[in-house]
This record gives sequence, structure tokens and C-alpha cells, in this order.
Amino acid sequence: MRPSAAVVELNRAERSKREKRERIVRAARQLFLSKGFHATTTSEIAELADVAKGTLFFHAKSKEALLVMMFQEEVGRSIERAFSKVPKAALIDQLTHVFGIMLKDNQRNIGLARIFAKELAFVHGENRGIDAVMATIFEKLDRLIAGAKEREELPADIDTALLAHNLFALYFTFMLRWLGSGEPTPHRRDPSLRQILEMHLRCAAS
Amino acid sequence: MRPSAAVVELNRAERSKREKRERIVRAARQLFLSKGFHATTTSEIAELADVAKGTLFFHAKSKEALLVMMFQEEVGRSIERAFSKVPKAALIDQLTHVFGIMLKDNQRNIGLARIFAKELAFVHGENRGIDAVMATIFEKLDRLIAGAKEREELPADIDTALLAHNLFALYFTFMLRWLGSGEPTPHRRDPSLRQILEMHLRCAAS
Repeated sequence: MRPSAAVVELNRAERSKREKRERIVRAARQLFLSKGFHATTTSEIAELADVAKGTLFFHAKSKEALLVMMFQEEVGRSIERAFSKVPKAALIDQLTHVFGIMLKDNQRNIGLARIFAKELAFVHGENRGIDAVMATIFEKLDRLIAGAKEREELPADIDTALLAHNLFALYFTFMLRWLGSGEPTPHRRDPSLRQILEMHLRCAAS
Repeated sequence: MRPSAAVVELNRAERSKREKRERIVRAARQLFLSKGFHATTTSEIAELADVAKGTLFFHAKSKEALLVMMFQEEVGRSIERAFSKVPKAALIDQLTHVFGIMLKDNQRNIGLARIFAKELAFVHGENRGIDAVMATIFEKLDRLIAGAKEREELPADIDTALLAHNLFALYFTFMLRWLGSGEPTPHRRDPSLRQILEMHLRCAAS
């Protein structure tokens, strides 16, 4: 079967739309990293991406929206990678594995990681994209905690969602303090992330 | 005894220096709140404070330094207030009392609290002022935890400094998410700060 002319036309339009979106995200990323998030304007992004301002607004209503799009892509991928091969081990080892991969991804991409860590808590009106990423990570953490309960590492009556919340909050503060410190890696931090999480998981021993 | 002319002169110079410092901090605060931290320049601060730029630089080398000065004053006072009348009660009640007062101070002064929460992790070269505030709060938290150990609410072998670190990290994330949310008060957040801290203390107690 040969595709009709209309389908070919549609595919071309779809491809052009996707290419423009990619150009816009790439341009925004480049400017956020070189000039800083605050100093970058949407006009500059449109210019560097070589699209009209209307096209930019079709894809993203603001630089905040662009930042959230990047966050969804980058951190979404990082979460997939982090949880793809979780070792059959104690919860503390699973957590240091998962968060270790996410920290390494931050390290590889430290300029953008710093912007995410600093800006995203204060972004308004674009929370759906952030919430979607957070829902994914909490669902995956919940599953690890449920596994630890099954193995009787944790008491069965402990609130899974609340424990996942706390473990992520501790990871987040650790990451934020590292990214804010200007140090290139999180390895020398005291206390270490493992010590921090172990302190919270002491209940595992009961 | 009458003070000598030289002493009078010195007092006057001292007073003028202090007054200028206060004017500078007040002007910086006003501009940070009205224009935002990033959009404010040190020239504008000097102009609004009615001092020469050299005078401003004598008191603070950068806007970051001014922000840290404000943090030391405001949060320093808030910590004093929060820990001044800690109830004779269980650790969880003491913590919700202390952090409750600090959250209320943030609420009263929400514009500045948002700037502190967003900027201070990323301030460089002015960390001594931040570290001094953090040392005060950790010393006071350590004392509460030591009291809970004495009352046998917590096992004696638990690492006091590490537990204080975690409890503060959980408070900080709670505060950051509230301040980032745009909501005027932290009262409706789910999970509540009390639930979050209880979850950690449950684990620490077992």
C-alpha cells in the first residue's frame, strides 16, 4: 500500500513540528547554561532556535514551561535508568544504587541539574509536568519499600507512601546541598547519603 | 567623668557607620522584595540607601553578602524565639513547637523567606554567615535529642548529630515545598510536618 498524498503531507507537518520543538528545547538549554535561567528571554530562545515567537509559544508558554519540559525528559530518563536494574539486596543497598545513578546523571549534566534544583520548587502553573515525574519516582520507591516489607526488613504496618516521601526528601536535600556547594561530585560529603538513609531506615532492624 | 572629645568623635563615627549599615540592609530588603533578588543591582541599593558605592562595598561585598546578613539577622532571631520556651514534652511535640514558630516567622515574612529558601543553597563565598546560623540550630536540636535520650525516648546509641541533620533536612524540604507552592500558609500540606517527623522518629526509636 502506498500512503496517500494527504498522509505524506500530515507526516511531513508532524515531523516539522517535532523538529521545531527539538530546536527550541536545544536552544533554551544552551542559553540557560551559558547566560543563566534568569537572564535568558524567550525572544532569544526563538532567535537561536530559528523559529517565530508564535511557534515558540505554541510549544511552550514560558521559559518555566521549557524548563519543565527539559526536566521531564532528562530526569524522566534518569529515573528509568536508575530503577531499571535494581539489585536483589537490602533496601538500603537498593536505595544507594538508585540514588547513586541519579546523582551520577546530575554530575554529568551539572549545569542543568543546578538550574532544576534551584528553580523547579518555585515554578508555578507548570506543575503537572513536575508532578508526573514525581509520581513516577514515588511509585517506584513504593515498590521497593513494599519489597522490603515482604522480606520483613520493615514492619508491615509502616506507611509506605510516607516513608517514600521522607527518603526522597532526604535524597533531595543531599543533592541540593551538593549542587549548591559548587563541588564537582557528591562523594566527599559528610554525612554521606548512605549514612543519612541508614539513619532513617534504622526501623529495618526491629 | 566627661568623655573626651576624641571618644565623642569615635562614638559619632561608630553610630554613623551603624546607621549606614542599617540603611543599606533596609534598602536591599526593599528592592529584593519589590524587584526580585536577581533584578536588583548593588548600584540601586546604594542609591536607595543614599550611600556611596564605596560605603556599600565596605559593608557588603555583594548582594549575596547582603542576603546572608539579612538571613543571619532574621533567621537568627527566629531561632532564638523558637527555642526560647521549648515545652517539657515528648521530642515530637518539642520539634513541632520549634519548627512551628519558625514556619510562622516565615509566613509573616514570606517574600524574604522565599528568597532565602531559593537562593541561599547557591550562595558562594559567604558561607560563613550561613554556617554560623546552621551551627546554632544544630546545637539546639542536638540538645533536644540529648534530652530525649535521657528520658529514654530514643536509644542511647543513636547518632545525635546525624538525627539532627535528618530532622532539619525534613523540615527544610517541607518549608521549601510550601514556599515554592505559592500557598500563604503551610497548614494544609499533606503529609503534615508532624507526620513527616513522626515517621522518622518512629524509625529512630525502634
